[in-house]
Amino acid sequence: MVKEKKLKPSKELPLGFVDRQEKELLIRDFVISNIKEVMIKYGFQYLETPSFEYTDSIGKFLPDKERPDEGIFSFKDENKWLSLRYDLTAPLARYVAKNYLEIPKPFKRYQLGRVWRNEKPGPGRYREFLQFDADYVGTRNLQADAELCVLLAETLNKCGLDKNEFVIRVSNRKCFFALLDWLKISNEKQRIATTRAVDKYDRIGIEGVASLLGKGRKDKSGDFTKGVDLNKKQIEMITAYIEDNSIYDTERENMKGGPRLAPLGGWDDLGPLWNEGINELGKIFAFTESSEFKDQIIYSPTLVRGIEYYTGTIFEANLLFKVKNQKGKEIEFGSVGGGGRYDNLINRFGNLDVPCTGASFGLDRLVFALMQKKDFKIKPKRPIVICVFDKDKIEEYIVILNKLRTSNISSEIYPGEGKLKKQMEYANKIGSPAVIFYGDDEIKSGKATLKNLETGSESSVKIEDLVNEIKKLL
Amino acid sequence: MVKEKKLKPSKELPLGFVDRQEKELLIRDFVISNIKEVMIKYGFQYLETPSFEYTDSIGKFLPDKERPDEGIFSFKDENKWLSLRYDLTAPLARYVAKNYLEIPKPFKRYQLGRVWRNEKPGPGRYREFLQFDADYVGTRNLQADAELCVLLAETLNKCGLDKNEFVIRVSNRKCFFALLDWLKISNEKQRIATTRAVDKYDRIGIEGVASLLGKGRKDKSGDFTKGVDLNKKQIEMITAYIEDNSIYDTERENMKGGPRLAPLGGWDDLGPLWNEGINELGKIFAFTESSEFKDQIIYSPTLVRGIEYYTGTIFEANLLFKVKNQKGKEIEFGSVGGGGRYDNLINRFGNLDVPCTGASFGLDRLVFALMQKKDFKIKPKRPIVICVFDKDKIEEYIVILNKLRTSNISSEIYPGEGKLKKQMEYANKIGSPAVIFYGDDEIKSGKATLKNLETGSESSVKIEDLVNEIKKLL
Repeated sequence: MVKEKKLKPSKELPLGFVDRQEKELLIRDFVISNIKEVMIKYGFQYLETPSFEYTDSIGKFLPDKERPDEGIFSFKDENKWLSLRYDLTAPLARYVAKNYLEIPKPFKRYQLGRVWRNEKPGPGRYREFLQFDADYVGTRNLQADAELCVLLAETLNKCGLDKNEFVIRVSNRKCFFALLDWLKISNEKQRIATTRAVDKYDRIGIEGVASLLGKGRKDKSGDFTKGVDLNKKQIEMITAYIEDNSIYDTERENMKGGPRLAPLGGWDDLGPLWNEGINELGKIFAFTESSEFKDQIIYSPTLVRGIEYYTGTIFEANLLFKVKNQKGKEIEFGSVGGGGRYDNLINRFGNLDVPCTGASFGLDRLVFALMQKKDFKIKPKRPIVICVFDKDKIEEYIVILNKLRTSNISSEIYPGEGKLKKQMEYANKIGSPAVIFYGDDEIKSGKATLKNLETGSESSVKIEDLVNEIKKLL
Repeated sequence: MVKEKKLKPSKELPLGFVDRQEKELLIRDFVISNIKEVMIKYGFQYLETPSFEYTDSIGKFLPDKERPDEGIFSFKDENKWLSLRYDLTAPLARYVAKNYLEIPKPFKRYQLGRVWRNEKPGPGRYREFLQFDADYVGTRNLQADAELCVLLAETLNKCGLDKNEFVIRVSNRKCFFALLDWLKISNEKQRIATTRAVDKYDRIGIEGVASLLGKGRKDKSGDFTKGVDLNKKQIEMITAYIEDNSIYDTERENMKGGPRLAPLGGWDDLGPLWNEGINELGKIFAFTESSEFKDQIIYSPTLVRGIEYYTGTIFEANLLFKVKNQKGKEIEFGSVGGGGRYDNLINRFGNLDVPCTGASFGLDRLVFALMQKKDFKIKPKRPIVICVFDKDKIEEYIVILNKLRTSNISSEIYPGEGKLKKQMEYANKIGSPAVIFYGDDEIKSGKATLKNLETGSESSVKIEDLVNEIKKLL
């Protein structure tokens, strides 16, 4: 009835968006249900905020905010701008400001949701992500920061990663800010840009960071990113700090004794802010000392994180095994989650002193990594297919179908219109474990033929025994 | 570090968007896991498409497409327009067109996802919805349509609704199109607008439909919707058709005998298209005859559904119990899901003859209805709170915490910074079932005090017995 006379529409997806298949989705469901269990065990409460917020409510704290489109998807709605959220933290801040009188103090919430970033898409760089967040709202207690590190570790472990396959790197923004103070980098924009440049160290290396701290850097695609424009001395000191400290995975012992223990390389006299950061790190390591994941929680002085609102503790969950990228090349996978303390974010909404700390999982990345582990198996359930010999006998097939489904066996009558050959092609294509033939002869004898599609073997089974025979086969 | 000198940002949500709380989210999780189980049992395969599509890919088949913003959220991205999907069907059509060679034929897929409509927001009218869809792609077999009706019924039943609390109304667009042919309403736009006007009958009544079929209708807010501009005779015949047929819930018996049985009122000679629709309905009722939900699947000739792409079978899941709206007024709840056959949608993408049929649940509406059922109880798990008497004894508390969590008991050390009074306020506020006191005296005696917050009773419990005592209490 509807006639389309226009040009054929596009069958393609916009860059940065993907279709996801069953295997990935089932592993994701498994991961999500594990995370939810851990959240409940740790005493967090479920909350959901919508995809859209007023643009001014969620602010712009993204690494890419310098780009003209500001990195987010926005719409003009009557007189105000709406944006799709770019993380789950900024909407939480809005929620807390709006409901401050009603929420428990502290308020521990978890949330699962999609976020969007309108960044330059590229291979493996998406514009839509699924995140899982846990936050403590309204507490300066560093035990909260410590719990989040343990929670990250426990969740990864529960999702099927061995203890030697991941690490939770911990650092403190105060230490890095102390370094910036000491280097007399006081311009706020320069401080943020410097932090973001250092955050890219794992990806672009020390040369890349040096370029970003100086005049700028051209990436492989030819795109140029403007630099921070620091002076030579400042750049040298920062790259030296990174290089001196880049061996991070032996540092837990250093932090154990408590406060005032500096990292390698003589960076131990950067003033009171530095000491405050080191002191806080000491407390966090003390809190995690009796955790079964204490060896996975390590000090990583080069960790700075890219998001602007962090004020103290920062941490990141890194996978230690190599995975293959979309081109089949082995790569270090890097971060699947992280977070930190953001004591001033809610203050934007007025005179609310609500210190916070939170952690976030990047579910798509985590699931991608898990899918590459050979020993990680979740198999989709495919239905038993009851073949259709004669459409007039459909009621006979429905009797069998009802029997199977009542026993919770995934099953269907062949849903198409093809002959037996097509039906078999269909059953094989969907990965069905077995088909049932119930033609005239079989109906007369009260026995169906059950064909195992994995082995190819056929057996004649009484209707009343079908459920049991199929359960053996599955 | 980040200083905000601007105006305070808004704490409010844009109209048409809501925050969702734990109780609703837990019931939603329960509903989703039930639907997924049914999907697997029926042999559907999991798929996910992204939130964004090219605007031309998903087309515009919405009831409100006449509005200037066309009812969807769209962005200009480089040279092409992107839109947030308004349903899960149009993206499925794009997916099938793109992957036609690879998919099984027929292809049965289920999908869970958010959709957005940029419609005029109002009380209880949202712009973001969560949907769950099941579709058969590439089959004309009417058994598929019948299965979807049974699937809707089985799912509602599994989610906690009794058989007398819902009904699956079934009709066929061909019958209504035959009526339009007979009334000589041949202009495509008028046909679609007429269908949409009739679709609103449950909400706006017969007078409202008559206005929409004529010059137009002003709603309570004063907004005017332009009418279809039919002539007096046409309007009279359509409203008579609705009124003659509006008692729908006794019609199963009428359909049972097979084809050529017309609804009430002498509408039985509208030509071959009418007969085709009636014939198809007869087959569907025959297929569902041996289902345990056959009494819930009924013929409803006034059902037309608002979306433009339906070509044959249409159906809708309606709740029969009354619910309270946001103002506390009892209302008929109406539809929580529905769907139908759309044989021409994928054809838009080129010469692909891919007949389809599908069903969709509106999860937010279904959950809202379930939440109003008194006998429907899902309780959030709240943590046991270990009170902090002395920060230097934190390691003692951690020992208890680890014991509880190892036994999978939701628990936490009080995460804030307040004294005991604040800690108790906190525990009560979050609905904690019990708190644990473990002060100096208790540490010396090796016994903690367990205070049941529901009864107020306290007991002294050996550390090694804590887990068992708490399990008794929960």
